[in-house]
Amino acid sequence: MAISEFDLIDRFFTRQRLKNPHNRLGIGDDCALIEVPDGYQLAVTTDTMVENVHFFKQAKPRELGHKLLAVNLSDLASMGAEPVAVTLALTLPTVDEIWLHEFSQGFLSLAQQYNVDLIGGDTTQGHLTLTVQALGLIPKGLAMLRSAAKVGDLIYVTGNLGDAGLGLKIAQGYACAKPQLPLTQFHTPQPQIAAGLSLRHVAHACIDISDGLAADLGHILEKSAVGATINADALPLSDEVKSYIAATGDWQMPLIAGDDYQLCFTVSPERVPLLTLPCWQIGVIEEKKGLIIKYFGETYPLQRAGYEHFS
Amino acid sequence: MAISEFDLIDRFFTRQRLKNPHNRLGIGDDCALIEVPDGYQLAVTTDTMVENVHFFKQAKPRELGHKLLAVNLSDLASMGAEPVAVTLALTLPTVDEIWLHEFSQGFLSLAQQYNVDLIGGDTTQGHLTLTVQALGLIPKGLAMLRSAAKVGDLIYVTGNLGDAGLGLKIAQGYACAKPQLPLTQFHTPQPQIAAGLSLRHVAHACIDISDGLAADLGHILEKSAVGATINADALPLSDEVKSYIAATGDWQMPLIAGDDYQLCFTVSPERVPLLTLPCWQIGVIEEKKGLIIKYFGETYPLQRAGYEHFS
Repeated sequence: MAISEFDLIDRFFTRQRLKNPHNRLGIGDDCALIEVPDGYQLAVTTDTMVENVHFFKQAKPRELGHKLLAVNLSDLASMGAEPVAVTLALTLPTVDEIWLHEFSQGFLSLAQQYNVDLIGGDTTQGHLTLTVQALGLIPKGLAMLRSAAKVGDLIYVTGNLGDAGLGLKIAQGYACAKPQLPLTQFHTPQPQIAAGLSLRHVAHACIDISDGLAADLGHILEKSAVGATINADALPLSDEVKSYIAATGDWQMPLIAGDDYQLCFTVSPERVPLLTLPCWQIGVIEEKKGLIIKYFGETYPLQRAGYEHFS
Repeated sequence: MAISEFDLIDRFFTRQRLKNPHNRLGIGDDCALIEVPDGYQLAVTTDTMVENVHFFKQAKPRELGHKLLAVNLSDLASMGAEPVAVTLALTLPTVDEIWLHEFSQGFLSLAQQYNVDLIGGDTTQGHLTLTVQALGLIPKGLAMLRSAAKVGDLIYVTGNLGDAGLGLKIAQGYACAKPQLPLTQFHTPQPQIAAGLSLRHVAHACIDISDGLAADLGHILEKSAVGATINADALPLSDEVKSYIAATGDWQMPLIAGDDYQLCFTVSPERVPLLTLPCWQIGVIEEKKGLIIKYFGETYPLQRAGYEHFS
């Protein structure tokens, strides 16, 4: 039986009922409909993942579905927004029902975890390309912008860095005694939604670490017209990443590797007591432009830039 | 010089200032921010266009930019929504600055025409795949749903059908004495935004004709659990399409061909005097399920279905 576009979407994605009360109409019409409560703004973000660029051909579809949604929810987290709804544009080379089942399970189970509804989509034929747009709510005036860092702010991260980078190395053949945690962090990152919500009234600037700490913190510095010093020895690291650094000497990897999806944020010193989430201070915002990397007191140049397409 | 992802987006797309007052933050942070006035809902839609599936490799980038946005705005029009903002996910094989310039001009000039801001995007490397998500505003309760057609409603369309279908045939080699109008309709369709807004308090069901009148009206019939009779001889046709039918006998083409992006809507007879836009009555909603095609009083079967991916 030929499977039409409509049947496809229907079979794997639309049997979910709307669960988030802000969503009033889901898949099945020309548009979906969302209600935004008075006093709130809608946060909007979009991210695309392309086969052989953002993931390997042999990527497990369940993990891919999870990660595609996670990277988009992570952008909402970094603004302090509460996720509400997503749309999914699926470009697929063929109809592979097992693949679609697994992909949709990974996508929808993460959506359910955060009370996010899939409210629309488009299915087209072509090289495997996956685009999500995510929509979230944030009280007016509370969004944490990249441009909001102030001189004197302390710089924090919400969790271990470098696990996903090590996971990528393991997937590419690096031998690691305990590969499971890094691989899990690489394939199925968790968006830091709760952390983002808890920072709304506390942090100045915030960003999610998708392209690597140095690159992403660099966006805050640029938009805020400030500089920073980071103490690389203060980064929170898993035992696996510590072992990797001990074995290779590559202590800059956790600064540079992407895909961790922890948040990096800045806080004025007097607001530090208001921090209620687990987080680690790794540096300070300074007036002089540029990013200074210190490691046990010595200053070092950054070895490589974060990942950029077309660079 | 290598051009980074960020430079690329910046150079061609972000120099626009936000013009629509509902948009509070545009490109350059993790999310954009939109405000929805009290009493309104947000309409959300997404559509993808893939090279060699939705357009030819030799498609002019300026027309492509226009059409990509037009097909998304058309979905907003069909609900009666006023466009506010769009995001753009661009997957490109290479950095071709001339192509990007032309594409962005086509996209942004249509956006400007409808007071729509480009508020976010993602640029990735891969086979040419273009996804837009469009966001619009509509007063609560006024969205025109596919499920709202009632038995006895009259069926209308907002303009000529078949021009884009003839344009496609011309692009594929069909010899036509006056090719310009069909080609223009095919390459640069106009979203029927003003028509959609004028129908908010008047029409029951509404849909935009992207996959062909028979297929799209079929969605209304299915969602509304009704049937219809269409008088194919009542369809509004350009002189070019009339000449095509005279030459080929293919009178069903305007029922079947897609890409016209006119609206098809249903109205109860007592509300017909409230119609303020140019429109043509082409049929009637009936209790008995199914779509009956009449042509000068005779009933005919439909020759082909509308276009569907993977079918």
